[in-house]
Amino acid sequence: VSDPRLGAFFTPRSVAVYGASRQEGKLGHTLLRNVVDGGFDGEVIPVNPAAGTILGRAAVPSLAERGATELALISVPAERAAAAVADAARAGCRAAVVLSSGFGETGAAGQARERELTAAAGGMRLVGPNCMGVLSHLGGQAWLNGTYFWNVPRVPGSLSFLSQSGAFGGMFFDQLRRRGRGLARFVSLGNAADVNETDLLGWLGDDPATGAVGMFIEGIRDGRRFVHEARAVTTRKPVIALKAGKYGTGARAAASHTGSLAGRHGAAQAAFARAGVIEAEDSDTFFDALAAIGERGAAGGRRVAVLTISGGPGVLAADAAEQAGLALPPPSPAVAERLRGLAPDFAALGNPIDLTPQCPPDHFPDAIAAVFADPAFDGLIVINCGLDLPPFAEGVLAGAAATGKPVAAYLLDVPQIERRIDEARIPRFGSPERAVRAYAATVIR
Amino acid sequence: VSDPRLGAFFTPRSVAVYGASRQEGKLGHTLLRNVVDGGFDGEVIPVNPAAGTILGRAAVPSLAERGATELALISVPAERAAAAVADAARAGCRAAVVLSSGFGETGAAGQARERELTAAAGGMRLVGPNCMGVLSHLGGQAWLNGTYFWNVPRVPGSLSFLSQSGAFGGMFFDQLRRRGRGLARFVSLGNAADVNETDLLGWLGDDPATGAVGMFIEGIRDGRRFVHEARAVTTRKPVIALKAGKYGTGARAAASHTGSLAGRHGAAQAAFARAGVIEAEDSDTFFDALAAIGERGAAGGRRVAVLTISGGPGVLAADAAEQAGLALPPPSPAVAERLRGLAPDFAALGNPIDLTPQCPPDHFPDAIAAVFADPAFDGLIVINCGLDLPPFAEGVLAGAAATGKPVAAYLLDVPQIERRIDEARIPRFGSPERAVRAYAATVIR
Repeated sequence: VSDPRLGAFFTPRSVAVYGASRQEGKLGHTLLRNVVDGGFDGEVIPVNPAAGTILGRAAVPSLAERGATELALISVPAERAAAAVADAARAGCRAAVVLSSGFGETGAAGQARERELTAAAGGMRLVGPNCMGVLSHLGGQAWLNGTYFWNVPRVPGSLSFLSQSGAFGGMFFDQLRRRGRGLARFVSLGNAADVNETDLLGWLGDDPATGAVGMFIEGIRDGRRFVHEARAVTTRKPVIALKAGKYGTGARAAASHTGSLAGRHGAAQAAFARAGVIEAEDSDTFFDALAAIGERGAAGGRRVAVLTISGGPGVLAADAAEQAGLALPPPSPAVAERLRGLAPDFAALGNPIDLTPQCPPDHFPDAIAAVFADPAFDGLIVINCGLDLPPFAEGVLAGAAATGKPVAAYLLDVPQIERRIDEARIPRFGSPERAVRAYAATVIR
Repeated sequence: VSDPRLGAFFTPRSVAVYGASRQEGKLGHTLLRNVVDGGFDGEVIPVNPAAGTILGRAAVPSLAERGATELALISVPAERAAAAVADAARAGCRAAVVLSSGFGETGAAGQARERELTAAAGGMRLVGPNCMGVLSHLGGQAWLNGTYFWNVPRVPGSLSFLSQSGAFGGMFFDQLRRRGRGLARFVSLGNAADVNETDLLGWLGDDPATGAVGMFIEGIRDGRRFVHEARAVTTRKPVIALKAGKYGTGARAAASHTGSLAGRHGAAQAAFARAGVIEAEDSDTFFDALAAIGERGAAGGRRVAVLTISGGPGVLAADAAEQAGLALPPPSPAVAERLRGLAPDFAALGNPIDLTPQCPPDHFPDAIAAVFADPAFDGLIVINCGLDLPPFAEGVLAGAAATGKPVAAYLLDVPQIERRIDEARIPRFGSPERAVRAYAATVIR
């Protein structure tokens, strides 16, 4: 069972901001402004030795005088962070996010400061230090934006995300915005002096607002516990990981930049496999797979049909499918016979199933319906770069609606068809290969 | 020496369009309209048994009566194509593009029709049949658009492209348009009954308008001749290939859809390597590499610095660099010392060189200049997802201008900086890994 105190990071009723500043450009100003502008619906208390009023909120020099705050966000110089943590703990906070840097990532003196930090926390749980903060949808228009980020999305969704890299959080928000996707929770883990990826993954597993979890991982601290907790989550919701530091140089850099030992990639890979965590091979596949899972959940199985009228791009998809470990069986005999009656004599109807541009457009609906209904296939990769796009796409929409089978598509851009495909929640990708890899990444191993 | 008759495909003084039709939606109408709308600056003669006037041009039932035309574009039913070819040959055409389908790709009867086609050509060179046509920039606003495509770019450039797949041509034009890139020549090869990839590659090697060549290849017909001709081209200009049909299913589909035997991938790969042709692993890398080469030519060497302030994304770049066979040496001792004086104590200054977000922004220009000037590096991968983007990017612009070293960048989108980076012709990519793969693909092996 996950620690219920972790809920205070995501749905606190009140927030204190240590280091809140009137001065624009200061990180403590950015943080308070983000909390206020984000639409946090509880009390917000700036904590600043000079007190006064900051962004319309009365500041206090110490939270201990005020009491009864749930979450502390801490953005003060490293040497003052332990005092802020102690103050928050005395005031009864259940959780604190230390965004300040200058701890374990900076060498021996910083490591000593990091130990002071955890000692000062008492019974309070701690995210960070050296992190970019926490973001959480609270319902309606209300968000907790306890981060330094200016580009966070404002679209609610069921995806949650844990990042061992703050900068990767920026990439993640950029991708969400470009794709118009929604978010439930985001945590930048930083040095993970207290709360780590395993703790939070367990909590997100129990979180009803979270339907799928993405993780950017440089190293796993306690592999055995991770596998145990993650396996309990992946039986209920998909978890997709991107591991950085796979090779020599990258692994050393990852170790250096988080101030912790990066796990050997082979060990992490084995842990992911045992835990049912899907591992994406690169950041493009990672974001594509998150998008695919966000739209239709995990795919059912690895037997796919590559359905196309575009020979060359269909072959690229077939290549990528074999490389990604998907199976490309031929259509079952009855479906093959049906297709032979609808497509031109010379069409290649193995797999890829290439109906050819010469296929009469009014044959597309029946041919595509037959492929969708074929029990030989768990899902479809749909590739169309051709001139007969509208009737082909209508067939795909009907087939997906009738069978509910997962589809990943690459279509050349025809805006009105793109809109219909998007409305049907069929994920589209930037190339045939990316459509295939996104499908493959969402197949639970 | 390449066949000078092939020039008639790209810079003809006059064009005849067989199958030109008044009826919208007919391919013969599309083809004539594309030629006229494309801004062809020579004579355009529609050939149609009913004669009359089509799109403002007087049509003739046979070109033989008119004579003196250089290029014939043929879009008639398969059974009438040989007669059209014979008519064009009698009229003295030097070259013909047969766009019609229904030949070798459709089985034995089609193969017989394809043999009639080549027999009818006489001394005329033939592109196709079963192809999407030819596109060529003629100078200024004048283009020959002898294709069925509606989405061709109108930006002149030095890139030329040969495609064994018509549909992949559509993907190519879509990518050019999205990236705002220019084009010199495009040929869809179709069944290649006469002119094949080797013939055209040789001609493009001699073509002063062509600075780089991209090829979409499903199979190479005569490997030994290809290696011989391609090697002569790659010593003068970069050639990048994407091979479809790499694996079992894909290879069989490629064989089926072009109506010819697809080469074994291993054989094609060996031929590319011997010829100095760069092989891209997938369509994303292919288009990224073409963009990179279009901007700065081929990269000098494989020793790169990954320069960043964004730890996690920098590690992803380092992973991708090792996987792509690039070398990541440390900075030379003098540069390392200079960087230690400019970056925070705890910055990891191996490779990746992570200056960290805590590096004072006014130290960026000197630090980045030192990395650019370091003889340890042939080029740079620049990754920045951080908040200090403007001064960092200014440093990159200055370093690239001062040293001329190739750079591939991943930057989070800040429109004003993107424009400056684009103006400096520094290619940007959609992820750290894509920046790395594009760089690696442009290193001549």
